[in-house]
Amino acid sequence: MPAGKLHLIPLGGLGEFGMNCMALRWGDDIIVIDAGLMFPESELLGVDIVVPDITYLLQNRDKVRGIVLTHGHEDHIGGLPWVLSELRVPVFGTEFTLALVENKLEEHQLLDDTELREIRPGTRFTLGPFTINPIQVTHSLVDCVALAIHTPLGVVIHTGDFKVDPTPTDNRLFDLHTFAEYGKDRSVLALLQDSTNVERRGYTPSERAVRGKFDEIFARAEGRLFISCFSSSIHRIKLAIDMAWEYKRKVALIGRSMTESTEIALDLGYVDIPEGTLIHPGQIKEFPPEQICILISGTQGEPMSALSRAAVDNHKHARIERGDTVVLSSRIIPGNEKAIYRMIDHLFRREANVLYEDGSSPPVHVSGHASQEELKLIMNLVKPRYFIPIHGEYRQMRLHAEMARSMHGAVGQVLMMESGDVMEFDELGARKVEKIPVGRICIDSGSRGDVVEDLIIKDRRHLSEDGFVLPIIAINKLTGSVESIPEIVMRGFAGVTEDGFMQEARRVISKTLDESTPEEKADYGVIKEKIRADLKRFIGKTTSRRPLIMPVILEI
Amino acid sequence: MPAGKLHLIPLGGLGEFGMNCMALRWGDDIIVIDAGLMFPESELLGVDIVVPDITYLLQNRDKVRGIVLTHGHEDHIGGLPWVLSELRVPVFGTEFTLALVENKLEEHQLLDDTELREIRPGTRFTLGPFTINPIQVTHSLVDCVALAIHTPLGVVIHTGDFKVDPTPTDNRLFDLHTFAEYGKDRSVLALLQDSTNVERRGYTPSERAVRGKFDEIFARAEGRLFISCFSSSIHRIKLAIDMAWEYKRKVALIGRSMTESTEIALDLGYVDIPEGTLIHPGQIKEFPPEQICILISGTQGEPMSALSRAAVDNHKHARIERGDTVVLSSRIIPGNEKAIYRMIDHLFRREANVLYEDGSSPPVHVSGHASQEELKLIMNLVKPRYFIPIHGEYRQMRLHAEMARSMHGAVGQVLMMESGDVMEFDELGARKVEKIPVGRICIDSGSRGDVVEDLIIKDRRHLSEDGFVLPIIAINKLTGSVESIPEIVMRGFAGVTEDGFMQEARRVISKTLDESTPEEKADYGVIKEKIRADLKRFIGKTTSRRPLIMPVILEI
Repeated sequence: MPAGKLHLIPLGGLGEFGMNCMALRWGDDIIVIDAGLMFPESELLGVDIVVPDITYLLQNRDKVRGIVLTHGHEDHIGGLPWVLSELRVPVFGTEFTLALVENKLEEHQLLDDTELREIRPGTRFTLGPFTINPIQVTHSLVDCVALAIHTPLGVVIHTGDFKVDPTPTDNRLFDLHTFAEYGKDRSVLALLQDSTNVERRGYTPSERAVRGKFDEIFARAEGRLFISCFSSSIHRIKLAIDMAWEYKRKVALIGRSMTESTEIALDLGYVDIPEGTLIHPGQIKEFPPEQICILISGTQGEPMSALSRAAVDNHKHARIERGDTVVLSSRIIPGNEKAIYRMIDHLFRREANVLYEDGSSPPVHVSGHASQEELKLIMNLVKPRYFIPIHGEYRQMRLHAEMARSMHGAVGQVLMMESGDVMEFDELGARKVEKIPVGRICIDSGSRGDVVEDLIIKDRRHLSEDGFVLPIIAINKLTGSVESIPEIVMRGFAGVTEDGFMQEARRVISKTLDESTPEEKADYGVIKEKIRADLKRFIGKTTSRRPLIMPVILEI
Repeated sequence: MPAGKLHLIPLGGLGEFGMNCMALRWGDDIIVIDAGLMFPESELLGVDIVVPDITYLLQNRDKVRGIVLTHGHEDHIGGLPWVLSELRVPVFGTEFTLALVENKLEEHQLLDDTELREIRPGTRFTLGPFTINPIQVTHSLVDCVALAIHTPLGVVIHTGDFKVDPTPTDNRLFDLHTFAEYGKDRSVLALLQDSTNVERRGYTPSERAVRGKFDEIFARAEGRLFISCFSSSIHRIKLAIDMAWEYKRKVALIGRSMTESTEIALDLGYVDIPEGTLIHPGQIKEFPPEQICILISGTQGEPMSALSRAAVDNHKHARIERGDTVVLSSRIIPGNEKAIYRMIDHLFRREANVLYEDGSSPPVHVSGHASQEELKLIMNLVKPRYFIPIHGEYRQMRLHAEMARSMHGAVGQVLMMESGDVMEFDELGARKVEKIPVGRICIDSGSRGDVVEDLIIKDRRHLSEDGFVLPIIAINKLTGSVESIPEIVMRGFAGVTEDGFMQEARRVISKTLDESTPEEKADYGVIKEKIRADLKRFIGKTTSRRPLIMPVILEI
C-alpha cells in the first residue's frame, strides 16, 4: 500500500438535513462531491437559502480539482452558484444533472465562466490521483449516479441518494452488478451511504407504484385536475403527462420550477408530450374543465408558490373551483406540515377534492430513498472495510451505524463522523484527526419573482451589517383588517433620511396589504412573505441596501 | 314537537386544532361543553397559550347554566381559568376530570370561588331544559364521557374525544349499549363526532398494544430507563409503573406535569405503586442505573421541559448517560417535529438508546382517537337525523362529512359548521342562522417555573398596549459564543428611564446566556425561551409591565 494519507472531509449534510457536500483529499489534490443547499428553519427568519461554509476549500483553492455531482436535487446542487462564485473549478455531472445546473448558473450569470463536463455511468474519468467510476442508481430523479472513487488506498463508494427500484419508469436499472464486482474482490476501503430513510422498515416501493393511484384519480376526476409534485420528480411528471394523454386531457404547466424542469426533461427526451397535448396557461379557459390537467409548483405550501396562490384564489391562470381535483404527489416534509395543511384547508374551502399522502394504497407518493432492506443489500454487495453513514440528521446516522454494526461478515468497521470532522485513512487504519470550521451560510438570494436573480450572494453577517428592518403589522383576528399604520423598527440605517423613507416604506406595506385577499391576510406565513418580498424590492431600489427584513404580525 | 329553537354554537375547535368549546342554547338557557386551550403556532411568538373568545357567553352571562366537561385533556379543560375568571358558573365533570381541574384552578386562585359538581357515567342530571346523560367512553385518558343531551327537540350526542378500545387498561369498557339504545328508537336529533383521526383507516389499536413494546424495552434496558409520555396518559403511566415493579426498578417522577397528574391518579386509585417503589428524584443517585425507571415530562421537545433540559445535560436529577434508554411514548404532534428531533439528536449524542414512534410493531405509542371504522361504528349505532363533524381542522371535518354522507341508512343529513357558526334546529329542520364573533385570545400566563401562576390573564391586545421588547442576540455559529452586547429594541415603554433599564435588561440576558450550556445556545428554540422567561420576570418585577417579548437570534 502506498505511503500517504486520504482525508475525508464532510462540509455539510452529516448531522443535518440538506446542503450535502463532501471533500476527498490525497496530498495536494482535493475533489468535492456535491454542493447542496438547505432550506432555512423558521428560526432563521429573513433568509432564503442556506449553504455550507466552504472556508476549507477556499484556504486550499489551488488544490481543488473539481466538483462531482451525484444528481440534480437542490440539496446536492443548490449551493453551486455560491461555491462557484468563490471558486472557479470544473463541474462534473450526468447529462440531466448538468442541464439543471446550466439553468441555475445562467440565472446567476455564472454559466459562461464555468466549465461543465458531462460524465456517464460506467465511463471512468480521472481527477488528480482519483479515478472515478459513476455507477447508475435509481432515485426519484433521473440520471443519478453513485461514485466509486479509486484512491491509492482503495475504492471509496459514495452512494449519493438512491433507492433500489426494480422497475424504474425510464427502464434504466440500478446497476447492482458493478456494486457486486467491487464487493467481490474486497477492494472497497469505505462505503459512504445515504441515511435518509434508515428509520423505515422493509423496501421502498417502486416509482411505478404511483401509477395505480393516478389511474384511479384520472378515471374519477370530473373537473380540472391539478397535479403538484416536486418539480425535479421527472418520473412523476412523465407519469402525469402520459396519463393526461391517455385520458384525453390537455396539459398546462404552471409555476416557474415546474415549467423549467419539465422543459429540460422534454429537451433531453426523458418526457414525451404528444403533439397538441401541451397548452399555455392562458389557454386553460378555452377548454372544458374535464379536458384539463395542470402540473403546478408548490407541493410544500411555500407561501409564494403557484399552488399556494391558487389555493387562496390569487393566481391568474390557476383558478380552482368546486369539483376540481388537486393531487399533492409528494412527501409532507417535516417542518412544513402547518403550511401544507393550511393550504389543503384553503383548497377544501374552494370545494376541491384534495388527495395527499395519507397512508392509503396504492400510494399517491413514494419515497426516493432506500429503506432498511435496501441499505443492507448494498452493504452486503459492497462489503466495505469501513462503513460511514452520510446524508442524515444525527439520529439517522446513528441508527444507520448501529445497523451496519449488526452486519457481521459484510461490514468491517463502522465510523461515525459529522460535518467538519476530518477522517484520515492510511495503511494503519482510520482515525479522526481534526475539526475544521464548517457551518451554515445564510443567503438572501434576491427578490423572488425577478426573472434574473441577483448575482450578489451575501451571508447573514453582511446582512446584519446592512441593518435590519422589522415591520410590525397589527391584524384584527375577527375582521382580518389591518388595525393601524404599520410600525417599522429599524437599525443600522444611519445613512437614510429616516422620515421620508419611513413614510414610503409604510406605503409599500399598505399597498401589499391592500392587494392581498382576506385569505392571504389570515395566513400569516403568506402575508409575512409577501411583505418581506415587496419591502426588500423597495429598499434595494431606493437605498441599494439589503437589510434583514423580518415582518412581525400582532394579532389583536 | 314543542315550539322553540335549539341553537348549537361552537366557540372553538371546529376548523382548528384545539380549544374545544361548544355552547347549546334553548331560549334563555345555555350550557357549555368543554373549555379548552390550544398551544400557539410559531407565528404567535411571545404567547404561552391560546383560548377561545367567549364574547358570546359574556353577552349572555345570565343565561349560562354551567360548563360540562367530557374529559381532562388541556384542549378541553385548559381554557377554564380564563373562562371562569370572566364568568362564574358551575363546572360539571367526572371524578378524575375534576381532580385535574381542581389543581388548575388552585394555581390561579380560582378554586374557592368555583362550584365543581361531580358527574358519573349513566347518572343523568338536569341543567335548565337540558337533561344530560354522561356515557362512558374510552380514550388515552381515564374517566372520559360522551354526553347525551336531551333537548325538547330530541337528543344531541356529543362524543367528546374517544376511541373504541375493546381492552382498556382499567377494564372500564366503552358503553356501546347506551349508544345502541339511543339509536334503536331513532331519538337522536344530532350526532357531534370527533374528527381527529378521520384520515386513518381501520381501527385504532387498544392501549394494551403498547404493553408488548414496553415488555421488550424493560427486558433489554441495561442502564437507567427514562419514559416520557403525555402527563395525562394515565393508562401509559400505570403501565410503566406496573412494569417497573415487575422488573424491579424504582420509580422517580420528574417534571411538574408528570408529578402532578401521577399524584392525582394515585390518589384516586387509577394507579397503584407498591410500597417502596416510588423514590424522590434526589434519591436516584443512590441506586444503580439498572434499578431506576424515571417518568419524565417533555415528550414534545418543549424547550423548558425536564426531558429537553436533561437532553442538553442541564437537569439536576435527570442525568442521561451512555447506555441509558429513553422512551418517547407519545405522538409526534405536527409542528413539533423539529423540536422533538433536535431533542432526540441531543439524546443520541449522549449515547442513549432512544425509542420513539417509528411505525414498528408492537407500537411504542397508540392514538387515543377513533379511526375510520370506529367512527362508522358509532354512526351505525346512533343513527342520527343530523350528523355534524367536530374537533378537527377544516380538511378533517370535511372528510368526516364525506364519510357520513356515504353512510346511507345510518345518517340522515350531514351539516358542516365552523367555530362561530350558529346552527338552528326547530320542527322544520336545521339551518345556519348567523355568525357570532369568535377567535383566539392569546394569553401570557405568567413566568414559567413560578409555583403559583399569575392570576392576571391578558389578551394580546393588552400585551401590545404594554409595549414590546425585542432582544437581539448575535450568536457565532462556529463557536456558539455571543458576539456582541445584546441589542434591545423597545416600543411603548415611555414611562421607563431608558438607560438604566436597558443596561439592567442587557445584564439579565447576559446572565441567562452565561448560565446556559453550549448545547442550549446552539438550540435556538431553547435559548429564545430561556431569554424570554428571564426577561419577563425581570420586567415584571421592575416595571410591573407585561410587554410582548420576542427574542431574535442573529446567526453570524
